[in-house]
Amino acid sequence: MIECMKKRRTIRKYTQQPIPDELLNELLEVASKASNTGNMQLYSVVVTRDQRGKERLAPAHFNQPMVTAAPVVLTFCADANRFVKWAEQRKAEAGFDNLQMFMAATIDAMLFAEAFAEAAEEKGLGLCYLGTTAYNAGEIIKILSLPRLVVPIITITLGYPEEPLPAQSERLPLAAILHEESYHDYTPESIDRFYKEKEELAVNKEFVRINHKETLAQVFTDLRYPKANNEHFSEVLLQVLKEQGFLKDE
Amino acid sequence: MIECMKKRRTIRKYTQQPIPDELLNELLEVASKASNTGNMQLYSVVVTRDQRGKERLAPAHFNQPMVTAAPVVLTFCADANRFVKWAEQRKAEAGFDNLQMFMAATIDAMLFAEAFAEAAEEKGLGLCYLGTTAYNAGEIIKILSLPRLVVPIITITLGYPEEPLPAQSERLPLAAILHEESYHDYTPESIDRFYKEKEELAVNKEFVRINHKETLAQVFTDLRYPKANNEHFSEVLLQVLKEQGFLKDE
Repeated sequence: MIECMKKRRTIRKYTQQPIPDELLNELLEVASKASNTGNMQLYSVVVTRDQRGKERLAPAHFNQPMVTAAPVVLTFCADANRFVKWAEQRKAEAGFDNLQMFMAATIDAMLFAEAFAEAAEEKGLGLCYLGTTAYNAGEIIKILSLPRLVVPIITITLGYPEEPLPAQSERLPLAAILHEESYHDYTPESIDRFYKEKEELAVNKEFVRINHKETLAQVFTDLRYPKANNEHFSEVLLQVLKEQGFLKDE
Repeated sequence: MIECMKKRRTIRKYTQQPIPDELLNELLEVASKASNTGNMQLYSVVVTRDQRGKERLAPAHFNQPMVTAAPVVLTFCADANRFVKWAEQRKAEAGFDNLQMFMAATIDAMLFAEAFAEAAEEKGLGLCYLGTTAYNAGEIIKILSLPRLVVPIITITLGYPEEPLPAQSERLPLAAILHEESYHDYTPESIDRFYKEKEELAVNKEFVRINHKETLAQVFTDLRYPKANNEHFSEVLLQVLKEQGFLKDE
């Protein structure tokens, strides 16, 4: 499977081949063996197969076409609700309505999601993670009827890959992300060195050109992840965390 | 590797066999192929091999013995610092000092960590995730010299497993974590049904007995994750997010 991981690429186009229930359930069950906080399993997954359900979710993901095109959409949620309901029923008072338990539940949801992704890819499936989930968590909460102490963290669109497969996207050299013993902060020289290959890739140069920008970084900061958007959606997320019970009003 | 995942268990005791640099680097490089937000790779990993370094980290993990006993300790961090430094050097203004980008970076760090864990386990290594990282993030930041816009999210202690292997811990039935089409909230009956097997396990009954509690849930809420602790460490985390630049003072 390490060989499978080396070749991995994000799959955004799927064939019409359906994913059998038994396969999906096997993959989710395997993924649930992943580590989690104190074996409390502070996560849930909502599986959307119904076409109308996908159409309702699509706007929350800025209408990226994978949402309605994929046979299955999985929304992975941080979930303290199930645990707290269990505790209440067992004469136990769970103080899980706070930021630290939101972090624990987020970690659990992410470990579960990535273990699922690895297993799915080994079975020949292809997938795309949608980071838009945390941007429009409030809408997704309404669409999927998520109760208090449940917040959607990440979405996976899943299906059998349509040929031809897309190119594998580049990564920074290992030295750029690895710090031995302590963090060695970046210098102008190391930044130049670590980003050189990325900046010189033809596909990235083309990306700069068609977006009429001067540098690749500007494509990210001006178009893809602009400050005003990040700040707006941060306010939205803060509000969602308060509404779902993980953060107190100050 | 799905077979490997089915059998996975947390490994807290390691042999003295060292982990070669080449193997560790191969695993980290493979893990970097995992998905991440917009291919910005908003994460870093700090590798601790030095015994003194492990001893300095240990108190931040409440002196759990794995920290000093493992050949390698890996601290996975949400990292927007590298990206922002790159942007600054390329005439681009990155507005990444906010909660939404902290979430994106946390997601990236977790996908990277779990891909690493899966690859490591396939190579015969054993590991333990330490969720204490987010509790004492402030101390870890000092020990590892993490700059602004870098927050430690999760730690892995890594080594070759010492025999005999521990028992595999149980999981809730799939139906407990899986919601078809929308979230179906738990009822007293479904809670009883989903937690029955867990509560009836001999090891969990013994856990309740030795801790002099009435129910298994009370072991979690009174001893392992008490409300006062969760709230204290939530305040600490809020403060860390402000200090590291991901959250504004209101």
